[in-house]
Amino acid sequence: MALRPDWKVTTHRVIFGHDTRAGQLFDIALIVAIVLSVLAVMLESVQSIRLQYGPLLVAVEWLLTGLFTVEYVLRLACVPKPWKYATSFFGFIDLASVLPTYVSLIFPSTHYLLVIRILRVLRVFRILKLAEYVSEADVIMAALQESRRKLAIFVVSVLLSTVIFGSVMYIIETGTPGFSSIPRSIYWTIVTITTVGYGDISPQTPIGQTVASVIMLLGYAIVAVPTGIVTAELTGARVRASLMRCEGCGLADHAADARFCKGCGRAMVR
Amino acid sequence: MALRPDWKVTTHRVIFGHDTRAGQLFDIALIVAIVLSVLAVMLESVQSIRLQYGPLLVAVEWLLTGLFTVEYVLRLACVPKPWKYATSFFGFIDLASVLPTYVSLIFPSTHYLLVIRILRVLRVFRILKLAEYVSEADVIMAALQESRRKLAIFVVSVLLSTVIFGSVMYIIETGTPGFSSIPRSIYWTIVTITTVGYGDISPQTPIGQTVASVIMLLGYAIVAVPTGIVTAELTGARVRASLMRCEGCGLADHAADARFCKGCGRAMVR
Amino acid sequence: MALRPDWKVTTHRVIFGHDTRAGQLFDIALIVAIVLSVLAVMLESVQSIRLQYGPLLVAVEWLLTGLFTVEYVLRLACVPKPWKYATSFFGFIDLASVLPTYVSLIFPSTHYLLVIRILRVLRVFRILKLAEYVSEADVIMAALQESRRKLAIFVVSVLLSTVIFGSVMYIIETGTPGFSSIPRSIYWTIVTITTVGYGDISPQTPIGQTVASVIMLLGYAIVAVPTGIVTAELTGARVRASLMRCEGCGLADHAADARFCKGCGRAMVR
Amino acid sequence: MALRPDWKVTTHRVIFGHDTRAGQLFDIALIVAIVLSVLAVMLESVQSIRLQYGPLLVAVEWLLTGLFTVEYVLRLACVPKPWKYATSFFGFIDLASVLPTYVSLIFPSTHYLLVIRILRVLRVFRILKLAEYVSEADVIMAALQESRRKLAIFVVSVLLSTVIFGSVMYIIETGTPGFSSIPRSIYWTIVTITTVGYGDISPQTPIGQTVASVIMLLGYAIVAVPTGIVTAELTGARVRASLMRCEGCGLADHAADARFCKGCGRAMVR
Repeated sequence: MALRPDWKVTTHRVIFGHDTRAGQLFDIALIVAIVLSVLAVMLESVQSIRLQYGPLLVAVEWLLTGLFTVEYVLRLACVPKPWKYATSFFGFIDLASVLPTYVSLIFPSTHYLLVIRILRVLRVFRILKLAEYVSEADVIMAALQESRRKLAIFVVSVLLSTVIFGSVMYIIETGTPGFSSIPRSIYWTIVTITTVGYGDISPQTPIGQTVASVIMLLGYAIVAVPTGIVTAELTGARVRASLMRCEGCGLADHAADARFCKGCGRAMVR
Repeated sequence: MALRPDWKVTTHRVIFGHDTRAGQLFDIALIVAIVLSVLAVMLESVQSIRLQYGPLLVAVEWLLTGLFTVEYVLRLACVPKPWKYATSFFGFIDLASVLPTYVSLIFPSTHYLLVIRILRVLRVFRILKLAEYVSEADVIMAALQESRRKLAIFVVSVLLSTVIFGSVMYIIETGTPGFSSIPRSIYWTIVTITTVGYGDISPQTPIGQTVASVIMLLGYAIVAVPTGIVTAELTGARVRASLMRCEGCGLADHAADARFCKGCGRAMVR
Repeated sequence: MALRPDWKVTTHRVIFGHDTRAGQLFDIALIVAIVLSVLAVMLESVQSIRLQYGPLLVAVEWLLTGLFTVEYVLRLACVPKPWKYATSFFGFIDLASVLPTYVSLIFPSTHYLLVIRILRVLRVFRILKLAEYVSEADVIMAALQESRRKLAIFVVSVLLSTVIFGSVMYIIETGTPGFSSIPRSIYWTIVTITTVGYGDISPQTPIGQTVASVIMLLGYAIVAVPTGIVTAELTGARVRASLMRCEGCGLADHAADARFCKGCGRAMVR
Repeated sequence: MALRPDWKVTTHRVIFGHDTRAGQLFDIALIVAIVLSVLAVMLESVQSIRLQYGPLLVAVEWLLTGLFTVEYVLRLACVPKPWKYATSFFGFIDLASVLPTYVSLIFPSTHYLLVIRILRVLRVFRILKLAEYVSEADVIMAALQESRRKLAIFVVSVLLSTVIFGSVMYIIETGTPGFSSIPRSIYWTIVTITTVGYGDISPQTPIGQTVASVIMLLGYAIVAVPTGIVTAELTGARVRASLMRCEGCGLADHAADARFCKGCGRAMVR
């Protein structure tokens, strides 16, 4: 097996590692650079600031994009399996964090898509070695994973309802400016059923207001369903964990995914 | 017992079955046709599109309605018990999916009711043999079923409250344009208590704003009740399932409706 | 012990009882009269209807108020303990259902308070002998009762927060029309934190919008607390019930308040 | 050990104690004074009231601030460890309750920050010896404490989402007045995802309304997550408590934090 050149190993340790002094400095510098560059993009979109500091902000953007590009190439170069990194979640984010600047030479407005690099901040969880946060996130993801079918059924039902309610409101509110087409009425139904309620479109006829009231009360009732689904999963895991008792030593209140008793090491009957 | 003619058996297998190649092609064509026709109705309601493609969209609607009519008649013809099909959920939807087009010859705007055929898409769950989805939907329906009395009490309480609060606000906000009658004030109360809050009507007097604040905080508190009701049902089923343990082999974590141990087949004590 | 005169016993059976044919007819007539009179009050508040049918609606109101007054006097006369009835929940509602009409001779607008007689409809639960509904309502009331202290702490915390946030927004948004005084800013804070969001008042300065964002995200997070409190109570009762197992026969899934096993009658260990 | 002078002991008993007659009178007077002073500040911010009663309200404010200042100095003087009190929660609040009046001599508008003294009202829970309320508050705080990591992950995810969705909407809705910069678009996204929905900014283009619909449905789905997290913690504690059974006497339904059986005093296996 051919050994990797020394510079690759060193670069890898600095860029990907969090143990050496150099690696930690790199991590901190990276987070600062990411936040700075996102702030630059956001401020550049404010007209009054752009008129005054525009050239400075553009310079910052190009400078940081240059550095991030070098970093991306280095990551690709020093990693043992470049393709695996390039197709991973962070590999994709890293690429998407530099591309918009170059594409903006052709399509100017795309450079605002740079804010996607804010997702690189998620690395901070890895950097701080917040293993506990990761395991907590896993619990949430597992609950969402477990209930994905229930949530899918729910979302499909809500979407079908909005199509039908939207059409009914379109027929009832003919002539009201906001309800000028079925797609707009469906938009209004979504705004209403999610209880957002902008008020840019609102029913004017007594019948329309009556049907709207029914939709609202319905939305009020069905908001309970996804909450119930997710909560049931989270609670199920939590309750089982706190009730499981080791058959050896009688100790209870184990972790949700414990396979062995935390007190005596005996395998748990699940 | 008289045998059904061959053509009925074959047609039944194609239209109702999902096992043969012809049956599967029919299913896919059906879903595509349903989505297309709903899209046609929705687009036709947008004025700018209607002016340009109106005749085309009307043609698509009549063509697909014709095909769906033929399909409905065939379903009636080839099914062993036509009446049972006609009065079933899907039988009703299938009929409601073609009627509006014909009725629109007399009452033009009713043809938008065609969007009800979007409900035919629900067949997709059957077509894809998503038995797991169906069983998940059953869990949700069972929880709603179990808690229907609690939810009914809750809805009645909310409705009575809106009548009383609406009248109180009508008396307080005399002169404010939006609160011109008790029905309108009740409409405002529903908009507020469900936290939709369009803002087309809002209290202007200090006393009115104070009472409105009380209504909002109340709405905030009572939104907890239906959520709690549904969640308690879902969690109850989930927890019982994950804690049930076979008395024979000690295995736990069975399905919510398991009657026999999934490990050793012994009948479960519930 | 002096016997009550016969007419009192008969009247009591008709008015308060639900077993005799006369009693049932009386109940149905009462519900119809209540709904009619509330509808009359509501319609009378709509200007266009009042102009056309005003005298008719006023006549209906006076007629029904007269009948309800006679009914109230009869109830007082035939009940064994008049004072106990007069101070009970329904005794109070029955009186409050007729008073506004008479008071409106002096203060005209109070007659809209007649809608309080809609609460008399709650009798319908008793009439239909919906004992199960009553026991379900008891479960909800018990959960709210159990969690009243937690909810009180929560409401006090929210109120204190609105006072402080309202004042902060008043200082930040000086000059914005909607935030003209601290009480109005507190009203805005309540509208925001409950996610109602009318939009009649909304922050205009960048700092105000930033603080508003924090308030919204906070409101989003704390809506979880009352839901959690009520749900935990409801779920606790539900789970305990479904897990309780008789020590005699091993049967599980008893009612939440069962004292004896529904299978063998043995006292339950709770 | 040097004894504290008598006047310190007496003053301490009156100001900090709730047992003597003098201490109770002091407590009641304090609560009344706090509420009065907050009301004075709030009313002073209403223009029409300020014009008429301005000097009176200012006098009340200065008088009460003077009294609170004396009280704060006395608390510092009579407490055994002044520094510990000064850095405690209530010590900080007590100081923050008088400072704004003095600072307002230089920066006038800061005197509205006096409303922070409303937090002193929290003492009422201590005064009324509502130990049960405190223990209930502890349960809520413990649940929030337990789930702080999950809630942190959730808030970070929501914030990152708002940055990205805000930028996407900024690109889509170029030209719509409300979406004039990325920060404003992020503000709109927060208003939408929390379902507040003022309507001061709302998407106008069909694509913008479609993306907005996705954001709303997403917000609808994710509101379930924090609710689920908090509820799972509260329910876990509640269920474990109601199911724990003493191994000695078999009694169940103990307090959530019971260490010994409430029936026989035996140590509980947790």
